Amino acid sequence: MHNTHFLKDAPMVISPRLVLSRRLRQTPFEHRVFEQGAQAFTVYNHMILSSVYASPEEDYRHLCAHVQIWDVSVERQVEVTGRDALALVELVTPRDLSRCRVGQCMYAPLVDENGGIVNDPVIVRLAPDRFWISVADSDVLLWMKGIAYGKGMDVSIFEPEVSPLAVQGPRSYDLMSDLLGEQVRKMKFFRFIETEIAGTPVVLARSGWSGQGGYEIYLQDASKGLDLWDAIWTVGQQYDIRAGCPNLIDRLESGLLSYGSDICLDNNPLECGLSRFCDLDKPAEYMSRAALAKIQADGVLRKVVHLKIAGDALISPRSTWTLRNHQGQSVGFVTSAAFSPTYETNLSFATVDRAYAASGQLLTVEIEGQESRPSVVADDKWQ
Amino acid sequence: MHNTHFLKDAPMVISPRLVLSRRLRQTPFEHRVFEQGAQAFTVYNHMILSSVYASPEEDYRHLCAHVQIWDVSVERQVEVTGRDALALVELVTPRDLSRCRVGQCMYAPLVDENGGIVNDPVIVRLAPDRFWISVADSDVLLWMKGIAYGKGMDVSIFEPEVSPLAVQGPRSYDLMSDLLGEQVRKMKFFRFIETEIAGTPVVLARSGWSGQGGYEIYLQDASKGLDLWDAIWTVGQQYDIRAGCPNLIDRLESGLLSYGSDICLDNNPLECGLSRFCDLDKPAEYMSRAALAKIQADGVLRKVVHLKIAGDALISPRSTWTLRNHQGQSVGFVTSAAFSPTYETNLSFATVDRAYAASGQLLTVEIEGQESRPSVVADDKWQ
Repeated sequence: MHNTHFLKDAPMVISPRLVLSRRLRQTPFEHRVFEQGAQAFTVYNHMILSSVYASPEEDYRHLCAHVQIWDVSVERQVEVTGRDALALVELVTPRDLSRCRVGQCMYAPLVDENGGIVNDPVIVRLAPDRFWISVADSDVLLWMKGIAYGKGMDVSIFEPEVSPLAVQGPRSYDLMSDLLGEQVRKMKFFRFIETEIAGTPVVLARSGWSGQGGYEIYLQDASKGLDLWDAIWTVGQQYDIRAGCPNLIDRLESGLLSYGSDICLDNNPLECGLSRFCDLDKPAEYMSRAALAKIQADGVLRKVVHLKIAGDALISPRSTWTLRNHQGQSVGFVTSAAFSPTYETNLSFATVDRAYAASGQLLTVEIEGQESRPSVVADDKWQ
Repeated sequence: MHNTHFLKDAPMVISPRLVLSRRLRQTPFEHRVFEQGAQAFTVYNHMILSSVYASPEEDYRHLCAHVQIWDVSVERQVEVTGRDALALVELVTPRDLSRCRVGQCMYAPLVDENGGIVNDPVIVRLAPDRFWISVADSDVLLWMKGIAYGKGMDVSIFEPEVSPLAVQGPRSYDLMSDLLGEQVRKMKFFRFIETEIAGTPVVLARSGWSGQGGYEIYLQDASKGLDLWDAIWTVGQQYDIRAGCPNLIDRLESGLLSYGSDICLDNNPLECGLSRFCDLDKPAEYMSRAALAKIQADGVLRKVVHLKIAGDALISPRSTWTLRNHQGQSVGFVTSAAFSPTYETNLSFATVDRAYAASGQLLTVEIEGQESRPSVVADDKWQ
């Protein structure tokens, strides 16, 4: 491995410049993101997403104590409406969406006919026959359009002009109830309401891609993006609000897998710890039924696990790090890692052969092919 | 507009850092790309692509005079094989692929049932029932899989372990014939052969995303990437070979549109100057037939044009710049721009209302909402 990307004991990955263009789409909040000093970005759904403001650790400590505003416009929506809308969204996921009421969101892995995960979105039910699929990093728009065309289904499928802004952290409840009244404090997790902020209609959901709680606000008019940001920013001053972004330390501590990094089309949901989101006996027709039934019957061959890695603070791998058993055989690979100040060790997600997936299993990690370290499989509470 | 991204007279866009992760996939040639000093990158098909080595202009001047090696692994392949392979690839494009012989490549816009462009790949016919779709920046894998599933077609569709490496520039013919013999000098444009370099089988095509000529070499075993690079690099020393990448100045001069920047799902091929790749009366069934026939009958409402912009060297827009007619009405927008040393003016691609699309039309460009400049529509030879 070339080691430009990985310097032990370095505070951040040494990373190259990103050249912006129209193809890496602009967000409605982008001016504020740059003004607030975002230092580094990734690209997600053909759009830019900030990754660091002060430093990963300082951003994390602030998130856990206060409140942050996050430009998560990259969570693009695929809107599905029309007579066959429910049948289509049921077809693409093993999750039983007939139980998803209007006003509710559900995390629902999209799974193809071979059992492979196409994406792991949150599905928002806006009306009996109207859904937003709030997608991770793959073109679900093309997937849904292709299936609907092939099946001749009576649906309309498009990407609406919707960009989510997240308010995350323990003080998010105070902030949002100052802004909208006490009723938003009582909202249940994964429920949403339709309301208005800064004179623009929004969908407000109790959700977000952190373990610290909060809301996602779905802006529907890009020209009002800065007004929406500013309205939250102003009220947030008394709560020490800062601009932030999905944080690697928080997501590892919270067990949030990232599509493309920790899971991909090559994975099935049963090996990724997503069984609780798979209603294999759901009544509706779904395309992965036969494949998942077979995997369930045969048992999975590998598992995505939580793995603690000893030693100094690590920077996440450029791609993967090999895992070896005590005989030196390759039995898996690490896909994401970060040093947790809370657990005082490196946390990681790894894919390992079934025989090595039990809590307490000891494995050796080859870091960038240069250094070996001991590691141990943990449960999903990092115990 | 926020002006972090756009500084007049600046040699390069001021751009943020890119954070690497497994999700932004590693290429088989990446170590050499970093070693050769790539300064800045973009993300394309969930993978990194270098954008600048020395500077856009120095890279351009070298490309026009010598030979460069480009890591274009981001040109991912979607392999379609099986009994219905030809029927499926015919279905998704208005181009007549029955005329594409084995050993031939064809540029073929993929167009949906509404006439929208899903991607604009090169299709490589490897066997009567085996194709590689060499895609621009959208998940054609999901599009093709979705349609095939919906239609119940007898095909296998997957992303093979194939990564193209381009050899571009006027000395590419000398270099490749030194490496493989004189027969490769005589290869026709968009024809390919199967051969071997550095002990690994490759598909060698006379093609590439520059106006300076050359080859694309489709590596099929990622573990041999550095060997392949090094074999070409060694022979290239006598031709002053450098590492390079698709160059904005060259692509504007050569009229190469970029999917996501200059054209997108919202565009139809007839308004983008792609009519010569649309065989609207082709015999095979294709999904855009009715939509394109209607657009053809009604006439297009707007056109993608070549536009020269006066004044000092410009940096390409973050998103778009508005175009106005002499009454100040908005009649279009610029999507890509660069200063051409050859034409000694700024070249751009723009989308304009039909009434303003003729060569010689004068328009005013609003640069980042801060400055207005005169511009003139040119023909596709920049006359």
